[in-house]
Amino acid sequence: MTPTRSSSYTSAGVTIPSASDINAAAARIAPHVRQTPVLCTAAGDLGLGYPVTLKLELLQHAGSFKPRGAFNRILAARELEELPAAGVIAASGGNHGAAVAYAARALGLGVEIFVPELTPPAKHARIESFGARLVRTGATYAEALDASRARRAETGAMEVHAYDHPAVLAGQGTTAREFEADAPELTHVLVATGGGGLIGGMAAWYGGRVGVVSVEPVACPALHDALAAGHPVPSPVGGVAADSLGAREVGKIMFPIAAAYVSAAVLVADDAIRAAQCLLWDRLRLIAEPGGATALAALLSGAWTPPDGARVGVLVCGSNADPATVVS
Amino acid sequence: MTPTRSSSYTSAGVTIPSASDINAAAARIAPHVRQTPVLCTAAGDLGLGYPVTLKLELLQHAGSFKPRGAFNRILAARELEELPAAGVIAASGGNHGAAVAYAARALGLGVEIFVPELTPPAKHARIESFGARLVRTGATYAEALDASRARRAETGAMEVHAYDHPAVLAGQGTTAREFEADAPELTHVLVATGGGGLIGGMAAWYGGRVGVVSVEPVACPALHDALAAGHPVPSPVGGVAADSLGAREVGKIMFPIAAAYVSAAVLVADDAIRAAQCLLWDRLRLIAEPGGATALAALLSGAWTPPDGARVGVLVCGSNADPATVVS
Repeated sequence: MTPTRSSSYTSAGVTIPSASDINAAAARIAPHVRQTPVLCTAAGDLGLGYPVTLKLELLQHAGSFKPRGAFNRILAARELEELPAAGVIAASGGNHGAAVAYAARALGLGVEIFVPELTPPAKHARIESFGARLVRTGATYAEALDASRARRAETGAMEVHAYDHPAVLAGQGTTAREFEADAPELTHVLVATGGGGLIGGMAAWYGGRVGVVSVEPVACPALHDALAAGHPVPSPVGGVAADSLGAREVGKIMFPIAAAYVSAAVLVADDAIRAAQCLLWDRLRLIAEPGGATALAALLSGAWTPPDGARVGVLVCGSNADPATVVS
Repeated sequence: MTPTRSSSYTSAGVTIPSASDINAAAARIAPHVRQTPVLCTAAGDLGLGYPVTLKLELLQHAGSFKPRGAFNRILAARELEELPAAGVIAASGGNHGAAVAYAARALGLGVEIFVPELTPPAKHARIESFGARLVRTGATYAEALDASRARRAETGAMEVHAYDHPAVLAGQGTTAREFEADAPELTHVLVATGGGGLIGGMAAWYGGRVGVVSVEPVACPALHDALAAGHPVPSPVGGVAADSLGAREVGKIMFPIAAAYVSAAVLVADDAIRAAQCLLWDRLRLIAEPGGATALAALLSGAWTPPDGARVGVLVCGSNADPATVVS
């Protein structure tokens, strides 16, 4: 099950983004997203014995990578004249909702965002600051998604799924495209996994050229459990990063990509995530939310150790936290 | 009074860093400092009608540009076998002290740092975290400097001046060298001025190729006043950025460089600095201290407006703030 590098393909009814899809996404979203910078840290700098290259995707619009997928989904639909007059609707733990709200404002569309009760107040404010109608409902993302679908049946708005749509994956895959252009020497890239749209898109881009390592909280092990089971399975949702990484199960589209191209799927404790947030502030003056610090936590905690000669990259993917919760 | 681009020269007893000096500094400090990234923001992104290229020097070690000058000063002295057994001593509003402490730890030297009473607690903690002996004395930087010099007379340690030393200016000038390499299209670069080591080094590098715009708080107008008087003069020290930009007067070495190559020297109100801090957090998820946000404040407040066709860069130079004071 090896996708070609030049065209998308369909397996068991699932369309996998190709490199061409991701190139097209990059061109489509270029006017709307930031090319986020890369920062090279020296051996020892982060308390590790090797250098680490960070992609600072937390400096993206709306504070996370999510606008890449949101813009690609919406703009691709607009190209096909499939955007309804009712605008767009999304369910989210917070970051995707902020991104969809940001994109809708930029494109002049109506937007409703459904978030669960676990979404922190800072993310409510972020979503509303972009002019979206915010609805808080359900305990977790999965319940907010159900509520958003009931609403969509009434309004006819287009769903912008947080991860399980080919255009969303292709948009998130542009992160890897940029990272590879700026840091072509990397042999391994660590990425936090929630529903898997980001790592799915990135792994589709890298296509095995780079070892893509999934990092999840122990309390949100959806990809870890899915790879063990051989298919997506319901998993617990909890812990400090549940608002950004708390999908009940990984997407159907990302799963075959992960099965083919994710080289390891490791888990980190909440304490390790908090420690990574503190270190990012102390050493680099970056405010990362728990989900944004999760990938780095795998290195700091030893949950994943690079093989000899590896050149390691880490995606720092989100910053929508109250800094008071980060700075000790 | 035009320095050649290839060698330093001496005017009225003052040695001006040349491009060669700055190239040598860059090579000397390369193992010890970060190449900080550049972030391009689109027109409208920061509420301005034009794009702005930011150099994120606030992600430097110890949270500001200061390690560049500190390492160059100390390493140049070590090359000449001029480093005393007593180590190094410095006076500082905080950022330079943190940088000297960081450099001394990296190089295995003893270090004492003198800070005035206006230095905020976050900077005390930063300096002590690097293992320095911290002395709090005097109302402003100038008084802390006097106290450090009395102490130096007892110990024989080497002074690492916060700005008025050729090796410090050459080190800070490496910021412009990197900025020009990463953003060669810029026609104007805005830089905050305190004692003037940073803007002096940067203006020495650019040498008139780029318009270097000085930005100071209304409450700390040392370069503005010096250029008006035709020589460094004592100026008020106050306001929200006094800990990082509160030199009583600009350095003797930077002044002729500024007179030749600083194309404008503008002032911004404290409220504009606070607004720039808030915007950097809201739009870019960056925590800048007041002095770090001062250069951007000139654009946001309209204190400086780019001419038609300008390509504008801003140095974001420091982040040693308690985020609770930044995030509204």
